[in-house]
Amino acid sequence: MTSYSVAVIGLGSMGMGAAQSCINAGLATYGVDLNEQALATLKANGATAVGTDAKAFAEHLDAVLMLVVNAKQVNTILFDLGLADALKPGTAVMVSATISADDAKAIAAGLEQRGLLMLDAPVSGGAAKAAAGEMTIMASGSEAAFAKLQPVLDATAGKVYTIGAEIGLGATVKIIHQLLAGVHIAAGAEAMALAARAGIPLDTMYEVVTNAAGNSWMFENRMKHVVDGDYTPTSMVDIFVKDLGLVADTAKALKFPLPLASTAYNQFVNASNAGYGQWDDSAVIHSFQGIELPLNVTPEAKA
Amino acid sequence: MTSYSVAVIGLGSMGMGAAQSCINAGLATYGVDLNEQALATLKANGATAVGTDAKAFAEHLDAVLMLVVNAKQVNTILFDLGLADALKPGTAVMVSATISADDAKAIAAGLEQRGLLMLDAPVSGGAAKAAAGEMTIMASGSEAAFAKLQPVLDATAGKVYTIGAEIGLGATVKIIHQLLAGVHIAAGAEAMALAARAGIPLDTMYEVVTNAAGNSWMFENRMKHVVDGDYTPTSMVDIFVKDLGLVADTAKALKFPLPLASTAYNQFVNASNAGYGQWDDSAVIHSFQGIELPLNVTPEAKA
Repeated sequence: MTSYSVAVIGLGSMGMGAAQSCINAGLATYGVDLNEQALATLKANGATAVGTDAKAFAEHLDAVLMLVVNAKQVNTILFDLGLADALKPGTAVMVSATISADDAKAIAAGLEQRGLLMLDAPVSGGAAKAAAGEMTIMASGSEAAFAKLQPVLDATAGKVYTIGAEIGLGATVKIIHQLLAGVHIAAGAEAMALAARAGIPLDTMYEVVTNAAGNSWMFENRMKHVVDGDYTPTSMVDIFVKDLGLVADTAKALKFPLPLASTAYNQFVNASNAGYGQWDDSAVIHSFQGIELPLNVTPEAKA
Repeated sequence: MTSYSVAVIGLGSMGMGAAQSCINAGLATYGVDLNEQALATLKANGATAVGTDAKAFAEHLDAVLMLVVNAKQVNTILFDLGLADALKPGTAVMVSATISADDAKAIAAGLEQRGLLMLDAPVSGGAAKAAAGEMTIMASGSEAAFAKLQPVLDATAGKVYTIGAEIGLGATVKIIHQLLAGVHIAAGAEAMALAARAGIPLDTMYEVVTNAAGNSWMFENRMKHVVDGDYTPTSMVDIFVKDLGLVADTAKALKFPLPLASTAYNQFVNASNAGYGQWDDSAVIHSFQGIELPLNVTPEAKA
């Protein structure tokens, strides 16, 4: 049997879609998560095997795709729990969590010691794009890492940006992208809050902006939630507490001022501390006082 | 003769396009500006008459469309120089400058004293849309004002948003739109500056963002200028010093905090004070130190 085998670790909204895309592309796909429900779903949909520990499949793998939440999870799985020691030399690990450039470099060094390849390959595009095999991937790494992961890239990506050979560049591009995404959500919230304060109907304000030069992808997507008063999370406030925190780490590492990103970070932190951490990230608007907003769907607070 | 007559005051990029659209729609169109070249151009293109003082045409007019720079110019023309006293009662004045709600209300009061109608009707869309008769207009005012100006709206607008009856709402919607536009330019500049600091190729960063959720209309339009190093002004840094100043005035009048808009204002002010006031507004990126950027076309500094 000559099929290419990949383990997808982290079956959240992006990981599940990516794993399904690997199955659809004919790759022998192993699913790994702590959520048994997610494992059962992927198994039913054609996974070769699923489990809570990737080490069980390590000897079969050509590649590992990590779509976990942060660098801590990547390090725990690869190094503390021993996956990196169990993988065959030459196996390629595609790290697609949003992490700092420094973390990416440290992970790459740990993998290199064990004869493993790494692609620093954050993703973007949302769950729908992931399910369609059309994620946007911004990747840096060696030619060997790109070559070894080509079947995974072909299966999961609509577009691959090759940023360069140096590990850390992919991570940095993603972080700069998140800077914009976070600032745009906070700016949209600020504009809609001011509209509420001024007595402008929010649906009118939304329609004007989305048809004019003040529009952003995030305004159009997220401020609809504010207009509808529906804070079912697309992505949560606490994700931007994390990602704008990574932006701040990056700024410090490069000794560079980020006046807007640091201001937006404060807005998300404030909203999280007010109890909105698990709400849709558009709930950053609730850090503003003295306004009335539609409120129709509030997510259950999670522990 | 039963034709509808309108004077367009202010033949800049937007006003010239709007005036041409009025001519194209068959309205008897009078052009007013201090720039003799602009007057000659509009006359050659079919204006009924042109001149530096609209009072000369006042008795013929059904409507006046003011596309000047700010509230001070509106007040000077209407009240200090006497146009409002010269217009026939019932003439409608469409004030399309970007001004504060308080200024809009004061102007409306002055017009009402003289039996004149006012539409608080800021515009958006840029010179190309204006030339095509497809401006976006966000308008508030009485039914009578809307009715009287219908031929002008039909001639110049692709879309008219009716915000409400109260003068000031149109102005506020435009100002909130400008909040977003200004923050998005400053955020785009901040992201591209960080990319330059991190050694990310700017054209790659631009391509990633414009194909992902971090995109904004302004990022896509203005950061191309940064990639190309071409600061020929689409709209100048000093326009956003003005417009974000109006945003700040609005916030103060409503007693409302605007953390991102005030931060972006500081960035534009800083860039203006560094000598970039007459450059394209994307030159706000030059308020960042410690980076190297492409610089191919620098506009001549104007007095």
